[in-house]
Amino acid sequence: MITIDSDRDIMLKAIERARKTMNEDKGGPFGAAVIDAEGNILSVASNTVLSDHDASAHAEINAIRAASKKIGSHDLTGCTIYTTAHPCPMCLGATIWANIKNIIYGCRPEDADSIGFRDDFIYEFIRNDLSDTNILKLDEKYREECLKLFKEYDAMDKEIY
Amino acid sequence: MITIDSDRDIMLKAIERARKTMNEDKGGPFGAAVIDAEGNILSVASNTVLSDHDASAHAEINAIRAASKKIGSHDLTGCTIYTTAHPCPMCLGATIWANIKNIIYGCRPEDADSIGFRDDFIYEFIRNDLSDTNILKLDEKYREECLKLFKEYDAMDKEIY
Repeated sequence: MITIDSDRDIMLKAIERARKTMNEDKGGPFGAAVIDAEGNILSVASNTVLSDHDASAHAEINAIRAASKKIGSHDLTGCTIYTTAHPCPMCLGATIWANIKNIIYGCRPEDADSIGFRDDFIYEFIRNDLSDTNILKLDEKYREECLKLFKEYDAMDKEIY
Repeated sequence: MITIDSDRDIMLKAIERARKTMNEDKGGPFGAAVIDAEGNILSVASNTVLSDHDASAHAEINAIRAASKKIGSHDLTGCTIYTTAHPCPMCLGATIWANIKNIIYGCRPEDADSIGFRDDFIYEFIRNDLSDTNILKLDEKYREECLKLFKEYDAMDKEIY
């Protein structure tokens, strides 16, 4: 007998994982899970920014990394990601790079905001064309040197992923 | 005698690392380095999406992870990140979450575009309010269940990071 978890069951697993690591002081109250096209759970993960000393260790990125490791490919085409909160731009980007086309999220950006996580300011920064130098300053330098590398790559005629 | 690498030397180290892993077929032609406020190099890394089976293993994310591991904290306040190409939204987000306020980049988005890496489409997706369902579909579900977790976290009165 094959047991396929319901949509709600999957979200509850993500919540349960987040609750565990939150209580262990490993990170914030965020969980995620990746399922494949057949509904099999490939990964369940949570935010471990504090315990991993890694600002990128958000729940969605951890779930994508674990799912990719499980199937041995960075390409998660056909998968769906469940996340207990609307993804930040970093996690949104990782989802798109992993070729995942469906995100099911629980809490809204304003919910995260109400407990002090200001995820939305990065979206605002991007919508304002990365121009707020109080958040981040971007300078272009040594473009010619870096372009050489691109040209070498281009000459190798590799598959783009 | 303390040797501090020049700006250009640091970028060249990032290029050199990228060239190595590109030629080993570990990932794309992208390198990055993180230096601390005193100019010490904390990390040099490159894109290892293919060899790590990890869509999030872009050069900047790898460099941020390595630098954080080196100092034992997710907080890279005062650091600068060098990257051979303008960061994608995922890497931009990771940089901001790591509290890095300066990015020095080499190639422009249009340069990446010209060798087939369409990083800019994720910026476009965000600027268009995540509305293009050909790229990604976001659905809100089980918000009430997820909100419980936020409320538990809020009641713990933890430091926000």
